[in-house]
Amino acid sequence: MAPKKWKWYRKQSVNGTDRKSRLGVLISGSGTNLQAIIDACEAGRINAEVVCVISNKASAFGLERAAKHGIPAIHLDHRNFAGRPEYDAELVKTLNSHSVELVILAGFMRIVTPTLLNAFNNRVMNIHPALLPAFPGIDAQKQALEYGVKVSGCSVHFVDAGTDTGPVILQSVVPVLENDTVETLSERIHVEEHKLYPEAVRLFCEGRLSVEGRRVRIS
Amino acid sequence: MAPKKWKWYRKQSVNGTDRKSRLGVLISGSGTNLQAIIDACEAGRINAEVVCVISNKASAFGLERAAKHGIPAIHLDHRNFAGRPEYDAELVKTLNSHSVELVILAGFMRIVTPTLLNAFNNRVMNIHPALLPAFPGIDAQKQALEYGVKVSGCSVHFVDAGTDTGPVILQSVVPVLENDTVETLSERIHVEEHKLYPEAVRLFCEGRLSVEGRRVRIS
Repeated sequence: MAPKKWKWYRKQSVNGTDRKSRLGVLISGSGTNLQAIIDACEAGRINAEVVCVISNKASAFGLERAAKHGIPAIHLDHRNFAGRPEYDAELVKTLNSHSVELVILAGFMRIVTPTLLNAFNNRVMNIHPALLPAFPGIDAQKQALEYGVKVSGCSVHFVDAGTDTGPVILQSVVPVLENDTVETLSERIHVEEHKLYPEAVRLFCEGRLSVEGRRVRIS
Repeated sequence: MAPKKWKWYRKQSVNGTDRKSRLGVLISGSGTNLQAIIDACEAGRINAEVVCVISNKASAFGLERAAKHGIPAIHLDHRNFAGRPEYDAELVKTLNSHSVELVILAGFMRIVTPTLLNAFNNRVMNIHPALLPAFPGIDAQKQALEYGVKVSGCSVHFVDAGTDTGPVILQSVVPVLENDTVETLSERIHVEEHKLYPEAVRLFCEGRLSVEGRRVRIS
């Protein structure tokens, strides 16, 4: 059986102008990847705009980043909901109210459920600080150092129901150095993340990504 | 508890000349990595010599490569032994009869047992065509393509009792391209293997590798 194919057909505006794609970013903390994506949009490297930023934590600095750029910054406290599906239903409602086309997880420390994934099928992206499938889950850099790999990096992937198991869009590699600590390795990977994530979003917004089985094709 | 440390102290010759390390290579097939290591030794890039090549298959082309370079080429048929430990005991006997210091698995399609590993503790190396811990075991390139990674490569590691789980010495990265097949990806990885394996052997022979926990330190 041929693998299932999927492609996002970007809706053009009726008058044919180069309409910007609408991005929703979910965060829990500092939001450095959010900042990288906002910057890429504002510089015109991505033909898109971040139309809302949602955090499950009130203290997330990323909310301040959003506000500074005039982007709606929304705190949705997961503790106010009965469970994950209920929380995700509210996320979907909020994202839809801003006509979000692509959902970007940027340090969002929550497991997302089919409630969100089905609403945004192959339109939820995440970045992970390791060369998946190596070192999924938390503390990826620590896992890498403990295993003793000589290279690591980061992976942007579409999110599926598993933990960091979705189709890989882009990966970037860094060396692991002799005296690396979790901090020094994380810092080296961060530099790559801030280039890789905007690049993956750009490819998506240009309609150049398709998913075949679990391979992401870039046209 | 501090991780267990291990280092191979290379025995110098009594008269202080730059004695060559003695390598034993185990193969089952063509032996292209064997050839790369022979070439590196003959060119003086590694201060070592391959003192015996052992194959479990009579038809392995690597045996011809060895003979061509005047290296003892030994066929040890695993089918003549009651089981893996018995076969490995014969391997140890043969390797010791040639005073082998480092055992190099180069496409040796046999699981090795503690009988060999204990006799050559942290002195058995293998190369694997993936960025371990991703895609261990057989058909690594096929696994990588099916997973849909954007980078792969090869890993030289010390062999332990698991399948491709031992401490990683060196890794090299290649891109996975849009239209790659198992063949094209394998070919790209092979080019890296033929550089990486001699380099790992060189570091070992120069006494520059130590193992701390499961991290390989390069001095």
